[in-house]
Amino acid sequence: MTLPTHVRLIEVGPRDGLQNEAMPISVADKVHLVDALTDAGLGYIEVGSFVSPKWVPQMAGSAEVFARIQHKPGVVYGALAPNLRGFEDAVAAGVKEVAVFAAASEAFSQRNINCSISESLARFVPIIEAAQQHGISVRGYVSCVLGCPYEGNVPPQQVAAVAKELYAMDCYEVSLGDTIGTGTPNATRAMFEAVTAHVPREKLAGHFHDTYGQALVNIYASLQEGIAVFDSSIAGLGGCPYAKGASGNVATEDVLYMLQGMGIETGVDMDKLLLAGQHICNVLGRVTGSRVAKARQG
Amino acid sequence: MTLPTHVRLIEVGPRDGLQNEAMPISVADKVHLVDALTDAGLGYIEVGSFVSPKWVPQMAGSAEVFARIQHKPGVVYGALAPNLRGFEDAVAAGVKEVAVFAAASEAFSQRNINCSISESLARFVPIIEAAQQHGISVRGYVSCVLGCPYEGNVPPQQVAAVAKELYAMDCYEVSLGDTIGTGTPNATRAMFEAVTAHVPREKLAGHFHDTYGQALVNIYASLQEGIAVFDSSIAGLGGCPYAKGASGNVATEDVLYMLQGMGIETGVDMDKLLLAGQHICNVLGRVTGSRVAKARQG
Repeated sequence: MTLPTHVRLIEVGPRDGLQNEAMPISVADKVHLVDALTDAGLGYIEVGSFVSPKWVPQMAGSAEVFARIQHKPGVVYGALAPNLRGFEDAVAAGVKEVAVFAAASEAFSQRNINCSISESLARFVPIIEAAQQHGISVRGYVSCVLGCPYEGNVPPQQVAAVAKELYAMDCYEVSLGDTIGTGTPNATRAMFEAVTAHVPREKLAGHFHDTYGQALVNIYASLQEGIAVFDSSIAGLGGCPYAKGASGNVATEDVLYMLQGMGIETGVDMDKLLLAGQHICNVLGRVTGSRVAKARQG
Repeated sequence: MTLPTHVRLIEVGPRDGLQNEAMPISVADKVHLVDALTDAGLGYIEVGSFVSPKWVPQMAGSAEVFARIQHKPGVVYGALAPNLRGFEDAVAAGVKEVAVFAAASEAFSQRNINCSISESLARFVPIIEAAQQHGISVRGYVSCVLGCPYEGNVPPQQVAAVAKELYAMDCYEVSLGDTIGTGTPNATRAMFEAVTAHVPREKLAGHFHDTYGQALVNIYASLQEGIAVFDSSIAGLGGCPYAKGASGNVATEDVLYMLQGMGIETGVDMDKLLLAGQHICNVLGRVTGSRVAKARQG
């Protein structure tokens, strides 16, 4: 298969990244980050999550962040809406695109969102109906697509079944997440082959965590399966609290470096991206998780 | 192309790794490291370098290291022999396999080994003749195959020309090194396609540095070109003093993780490998460069 000539990068740092950082961060700093990512040319930025601050304190103030960021025409500013209450809050905040979150593993679904996979899908029905009424697009996430911290292996058919349901429920795109970062290239390809039997490949995205250093190679394997949308996180912010190890999401800078080296267009400016990453790392007082950023710092 | 079912890992940590570490290390610690790598099941370990300690102080004592390590039958303990004097010292130390080192970039050759590429190849002639007389195998390195810190791009044909010469000079294997770690998958494949037009692919190895996080994806791209031998360094030890950034050689643990996940046999035991890496990092007082080791440490 010919590799895609263009890739859409979905920047999840302000949500999936910051949500899993220990250091609290102000609304002003979040706004600065989102604006810097807009300036770097990203076309989709997941800005926050409309969930009770009791559960996810890092996501408090998402409505205020939405109100204060620059809204550049053509850029999508998304948010996670785990339930109808969160969806309504997102709409009130002016959000035009939301994401819902399912798991491919029963055990992870139970422990992470306190219900079975099918219960979680049933909960999305009223959200998606309400979204249709408001003309809001819904993106679906599936976690644990290449392994579960409780169940170990997750069969590709199980991933395909959940992805198929989300697509049938009108999610315009389904992002398949290697939440614990244990995937390797053959498993990645087999998983996408199982899923693309049920969902068109242009409706799929890859979401890889770099816990074991495998994220970029899995993205390359995904490109070879015709996948052209990838989630990534500025400076590699975040991680999964259920997986051991310091590293979390694959760093946007490192994905961009590979894609630029391959002549694949993204519309993202490396220098501005590096500045955005450097700034948020300074705010958080943490070392960047991006190899490219480390190398450029010398 | 079908991927190789077996991969030979060439452990370069005790030489290419330690050579570029700032912290001095004793002969006893080097011996411990090599023995631990032997126990982990590696089939080729580059143990040291026979070069003036004035130039490379970290490689002082290579003869003593050779004398004291366990020599497990079937395992190759190699050494770098940059000139005839070094080769003779290596032979005196009982070394059965040596490596010589050329560059694909004229500027790097001049600055790194103080002569042109063709002068460096000419210097290898007496070494290789002497090796043949002693029944010693010679492995050839080519550096800067995907970029040069002085020249930037290095044309694949230039790499092919140097690799072809080394192979014609009776190097039984030619290792192609992305010394500054700037390579990406398409460039890696194009480089191997150029070289395999002149040298059989089973006589080639890949040597990738992880400076920009691209090493594993380049190894996967190489596997797709039928390459089945890779150099790597325990705990990601080392680096290239001529390239900015903290990261050096790709970590053996991370390569093994990917290969195991793909069902590719190497004969190497992950748990023993991780122990070897942990021990040498303690000795050096440094953080591991292996993502797998970091994740396992929690």
